[in-house]
Amino acid sequence: MPVLTLYYAPGTCAQAVRIALEEAQAPHALVRVDFASQQQRTPEYLAVNPKGRVPALATEHGTLTETPALLVYVAQRFAQANLAPSDAFGLARMQEFNSYLASTVHIAHAHRPRAARWADEPEAQAAMQRKVPANMRECFALIERHYLADAAKGPWVLGEQYSVADGYLFTVAGWLKSDGVDIAEFPRVAAHSQRMAQRPAVQRALA
Amino acid sequence: MPVLTLYYAPGTCAQAVRIALEEAQAPHALVRVDFASQQQRTPEYLAVNPKGRVPALATEHGTLTETPALLVYVAQRFAQANLAPSDAFGLARMQEFNSYLASTVHIAHAHRPRAARWADEPEAQAAMQRKVPANMRECFALIERHYLADAAKGPWVLGEQYSVADGYLFTVAGWLKSDGVDIAEFPRVAAHSQRMAQRPAVQRALA
Repeated sequence: MPVLTLYYAPGTCAQAVRIALEEAQAPHALVRVDFASQQQRTPEYLAVNPKGRVPALATEHGTLTETPALLVYVAQRFAQANLAPSDAFGLARMQEFNSYLASTVHIAHAHRPRAARWADEPEAQAAMQRKVPANMRECFALIERHYLADAAKGPWVLGEQYSVADGYLFTVAGWLKSDGVDIAEFPRVAAHSQRMAQRPAVQRALA
Repeated sequence: MPVLTLYYAPGTCAQAVRIALEEAQAPHALVRVDFASQQQRTPEYLAVNPKGRVPALATEHGTLTETPALLVYVAQRFAQANLAPSDAFGLARMQEFNSYLASTVHIAHAHRPRAARWADEPEAQAAMQRKVPANMRECFALIERHYLADAAKGPWVLGEQYSVADGYLFTVAGWLKSDGVDIAEFPRVAAHSQRMAQRPAVQRALA
């Protein structure tokens, strides 16, 4: 029986953790949290994750949350899969990228489906939603010209080394369309997503 | 000559990194970025950090950004200071906390001074600003009852072990007053901040 259980919902950043688990060939169980029926607000789920969000990863030591933390945890626990640099600077480079996705890009996106978090008035929520495409464009322009600028060094976010950051970028880039942005505006991001979609582990995670 | 240079601005989350550097007794230089004159938007600073934000940490290998990445980097580079757990689960617990501060609490706060990031209309920005106290209260209520619930286990975020997460919590809790929230509403957070203020490294970082 797997000791790891991932609580997820389709279309969320939990997909990045699913991809990491598949890449690591980590035995794990999946529990789908039904956002349509607000299952994330039930006492049962709040006992798993008091934040009422996904992903959450139950382990034999306790339950962990927050995507950047889970990605490094999976990479370090299944170190033989080589999904993260092991030196301090290399790990920090990966963490910088993951943290940018979590704290800036995911937030830029969240102002469309989750605008009510930050203002009560419908007009204010609509104003936030109108700005989402511009903010997502700004984020992905930076990813394109800064983080993927060294594409000559290799096909992945960190260059030659494939890492958990790649599954995270693939996941967040998958939100562009619903945010009203054409991924083709960012050729390196688009090529990265195409490469990702061909990986067997990614196909298993999406299945 | 120090090989590390921290670009910071007073009152920002860069303070958490200053505290970590002081706790680690890490030789470092400081460069103050003047937000009042929009120095963070100058070509010179954008060459350091294309995001136009602080903190940024220049190292002999290249420049790193994003507070959670910098905190783990400082802890791992100066491992003798024991500022982060070294096992995968312990590190993940700390990263979970830091990621929550970066992606939820800092964002809740940022809707007051930086509302213009997420909507153009002044009325929408005012609506976001009105909701900041309630959102900060919700975040700190969770920190109080979930993350600091095990206060019996020790005085710090991770229990007995002091870590870079403590300087980060201290920094973000320092924003409560300007956000219209009395830290006394959260007795464990308030006690934590008082303990932090007594640490010599924290006093050096604030000097």
